[in-house]
Amino acid sequence: MRIFASKTDNMSEEKEIYKHSIPVQLRFNDTDALGHVNNSVYLSFYDLGKSDYFNTIRGLEIKQRDVDVVIAHIDVDFIAPVFLNDHIAVQTRVSAIGNKSFSLKQRIVDQETGEEKCVCHTVMVGFDFETNTTKPISQEWRNAIELYEGHSY
Amino acid sequence: MRIFASKTDNMSEEKEIYKHSIPVQLRFNDTDALGHVNNSVYLSFYDLGKSDYFNTIRGLEIKQRDVDVVIAHIDVDFIAPVFLNDHIAVQTRVSAIGNKSFSLKQRIVDQETGEEKCVCHTVMVGFDFETNTTKPISQEWRNAIELYEGHSY
Amino acid sequence: MRIFASKTDNMSEEKEIYKHSIPVQLRFNDTDALGHVNNSVYLSFYDLGKSDYFNTIRGLEIKQRDVDVVIAHIDVDFIAPVFLNDHIAVQTRVSAIGNKSFSLKQRIVDQETGEEKCVCHTVMVGFDFETNTTKPISQEWRNAIELYEGHSY
Amino acid sequence: MRIFASKTDNMSEEKEIYKHSIPVQLRFNDTDALGHVNNSVYLSFYDLGKSDYFNTIRGLEIKQRDVDVVIAHIDVDFIAPVFLNDHIAVQTRVSAIGNKSFSLKQRIVDQETGEEKCVCHTVMVGFDFETNTTKPISQEWRNAIELYEGHSY
Repeated sequence: MRIFASKTDNMSEEKEIYKHSIPVQLRFNDTDALGHVNNSVYLSFYDLGKSDYFNTIRGLEIKQRDVDVVIAHIDVDFIAPVFLNDHIAVQTRVSAIGNKSFSLKQRIVDQETGEEKCVCHTVMVGFDFETNTTKPISQEWRNAIELYEGHSY
Repeated sequence: MRIFASKTDNMSEEKEIYKHSIPVQLRFNDTDALGHVNNSVYLSFYDLGKSDYFNTIRGLEIKQRDVDVVIAHIDVDFIAPVFLNDHIAVQTRVSAIGNKSFSLKQRIVDQETGEEKCVCHTVMVGFDFETNTTKPISQEWRNAIELYEGHSY
Repeated sequence: MRIFASKTDNMSEEKEIYKHSIPVQLRFNDTDALGHVNNSVYLSFYDLGKSDYFNTIRGLEIKQRDVDVVIAHIDVDFIAPVFLNDHIAVQTRVSAIGNKSFSLKQRIVDQETGEEKCVCHTVMVGFDFETNTTKPISQEWRNAIELYEGHSY
Repeated sequence: MRIFASKTDNMSEEKEIYKHSIPVQLRFNDTDALGHVNNSVYLSFYDLGKSDYFNTIRGLEIKQRDVDVVIAHIDVDFIAPVFLNDHIAVQTRVSAIGNKSFSLKQRIVDQETGEEKCVCHTVMVGFDFETNTTKPISQEWRNAIELYEGHSY
């Protein structure tokens, strides 16, 4: 179920680099009766990565209601369970930018071993909350993402 | 740790009647690694009871931002664990109304056996979100509560 | 982003029938600062649907640790936001059964209008928690699913 | 509603010292439709503080099922709202130890300003999960707590 290039797949390796990573603080009730971190909680980890990524590229804190994208699609591969005492991080990069949407690749890894626990692909769509319609990704965002990632899309 | 009157305590028994009760739909990730419903989740059950109580007494759905009270204090006695397959309900009543605050008594019970699982006392304070100051409980709310509970405070 | 057959796609329409549906009880803290139900909470709704589906086909309550499948993959299309006062239900059906895995299609709909809010495809894999290895889907489960869905896979 | 000694209350000041503090990583869905961190989420912050406190005094990670205390009672004073961009920490200390129970005082503070956001008092009871009965707090725990806090109880 691994969707990332292997280390010998040199052609695309460069674009698979995650510049953004933050550790995740696990909470006791992230686990469920099976003793694993519950699958529904992973999405809040990816949210954490996204929020911090956006804060980083924009160089400022996101105002609480100043969000002009919505999540249209996610797909997630659960590779290995996460336990309460694991030290995990979520890594985030923008993998593609279109006219009205962009794609994120994210993954949850063990901070010590680098083991991949879960990978996620998210499509976010520009959205105008006043008119309830989609809108283009602004040039300002595009520039900020390209600057951060170090390449154009 | 039971804070309610026993059945033989006739003097105050009448006021201990809970007219409002709603079943709680448990979710798999309400449980934690101990297999119990996690203590932090109980507060969302009490929220559920409160919201439905307020909707009921006001005779209409609460608009999302049309909330003019804040929670100032809660105290909770955990009496017996709740498991995923339990069928529980949360019961709610207003136990006191002051000038700028009112108190709720709530409890979580097994719907079949009536067993008390948890009891909660909450103090809510009238709050003006525009000025960020406390404000009196409106006569409209007071009337609605007294009408519903069937007695004055 | 709709991944289900349209009404004129007669060929596959029959298999798109959802026999299993349960209403979802929304909680106040399911919403986030945008006023919508947060995307991460949807997975707990799908969990709710899955648990109830499995309980139904097996004709008994699932014991808390008596779960022999894990979630390997999910993909989710978010079609329309869900608000606190919406009355939603989650619908669930098994769409495919393989040797060691099966697929679920689920969707969240408005109970009153039938509006599709979100659709989800999940791959679950048979898993032996003692040996930490995948295992085949038992014939007992296969039979129960086919009996419930009314067709073979 | 402040339940801690003021700075001029010299008599008890010494015991009000919190030696244990950990920052809390806020998640987007900790907020609710009011834009505040939802009251029910605070208990998971206090859980975080407790878990880390216990790990610290025992000098090792708590095994997931190796927990021999249950929460019997909490009372919480909500003093000021917490917003998504606040940098908060949870502080924890043991305030009393009895035969079969001990008490924790905890508070949530702004890491930068020291502003007190919320205070919590928790009673935990020694519990034997095999026999489902209360049990004494072990001398081992008592010693570890006294060693950490630097005084006897």
